[in-house]
Amino acid sequence: MTSSAVLAEIKSSIKTIPNYPKAGIMFRDVTSLVENGRAFALSVQALAEPFKNQGITKVVGAEARGFIFGAAVANALGAGFVLARKPNKLPRETISQDYELEYGSDELHIHKDSLNSSDKVLLVDDLIATGGTIEAVAKMVRQLGATVETAAFVINLPDLGGADKLRALNIAPYCLVEFEGE
Amino acid sequence: MTSSAVLAEIKSSIKTIPNYPKAGIMFRDVTSLVENGRAFALSVQALAEPFKNQGITKVVGAEARGFIFGAAVANALGAGFVLARKPNKLPRETISQDYELEYGSDELHIHKDSLNSSDKVLLVDDLIATGGTIEAVAKMVRQLGATVETAAFVINLPDLGGADKLRALNIAPYCLVEFEGE
Repeated sequence: MTSSAVLAEIKSSIKTIPNYPKAGIMFRDVTSLVENGRAFALSVQALAEPFKNQGITKVVGAEARGFIFGAAVANALGAGFVLARKPNKLPRETISQDYELEYGSDELHIHKDSLNSSDKVLLVDDLIATGGTIEAVAKMVRQLGATVETAAFVINLPDLGGADKLRALNIAPYCLVEFEGE
Repeated sequence: MTSSAVLAEIKSSIKTIPNYPKAGIMFRDVTSLVENGRAFALSVQALAEPFKNQGITKVVGAEARGFIFGAAVANALGAGFVLARKPNKLPRETISQDYELEYGSDELHIHKDSLNSSDKVLLVDDLIATGGTIEAVAKMVRQLGATVETAAFVINLPDLGGADKLRALNIAPYCLVEFEGE
């Protein structure tokens, strides 16, 4: 169990950029945390801790910022890391899933042979907002027959509903810090 | 010092995709290594080992695959991780550097306040080919006044000259495995 003092230190390492990328948005900048060696190490430890000895075989994370915490948490758990990427980026045969953006839609791919029914997956990303990206990733993981019941995030923006969307998919979200009023 | 048996295991976990992304190219697919929990853990340990207790304060890696090993090695060293990203991706003030592609050019950015003269930097990427990307990153690191004398890669393609390009910049390349005849 990560102490409240450590969680407060992690939260204080996240800079807020007002009006980025557009007016009215308070952007929570996880890169300031990652640049801070101590805060980054504490965050990876805190993200991995509840999932040690839980039989997690693979961590899945989405391009590009999801690779940062995804790879580090996979390494901390001794698990493999599976990349969810934009179209035409993965060299082997893939499956894909569309997801909605504010305007229009996009798609993510994962390698077809990267997961199977023997895999127990932890989803990892830096931040959960509306949850559209991580929902697309979860659908692909299940399409390949793997089990996914948990997802870990540094930052939760609870007002945007992503954590509830995951719970509706029977995936338990685990988040280190929250910023309300988004 | 990583044993030759471990290095051979790492090398054997890298799949080769013939004629990808175009005819005549033997693509060395590091994602197959990363998906393998044991090979990924051995690689991160091998990449970090020579740089323990060397005073490295920051690891710098380029979007997107460079985030995978960069973040994991930073974490293994207790260092911060600084992101080099494509234009319009970083929220704070940046500096940028152009680099040549096969056709045309592209540019990378890093946050202006992410490094300073007290930082000792290790560059990390999955693969070094011509070295154009990592040269651009090294120039930005030095422009911000930080010291960079070493770079670590999983895969070296020596026939493409990137390692020699780094040596000419007084940066010592450290590579786990090589594939010749590219």
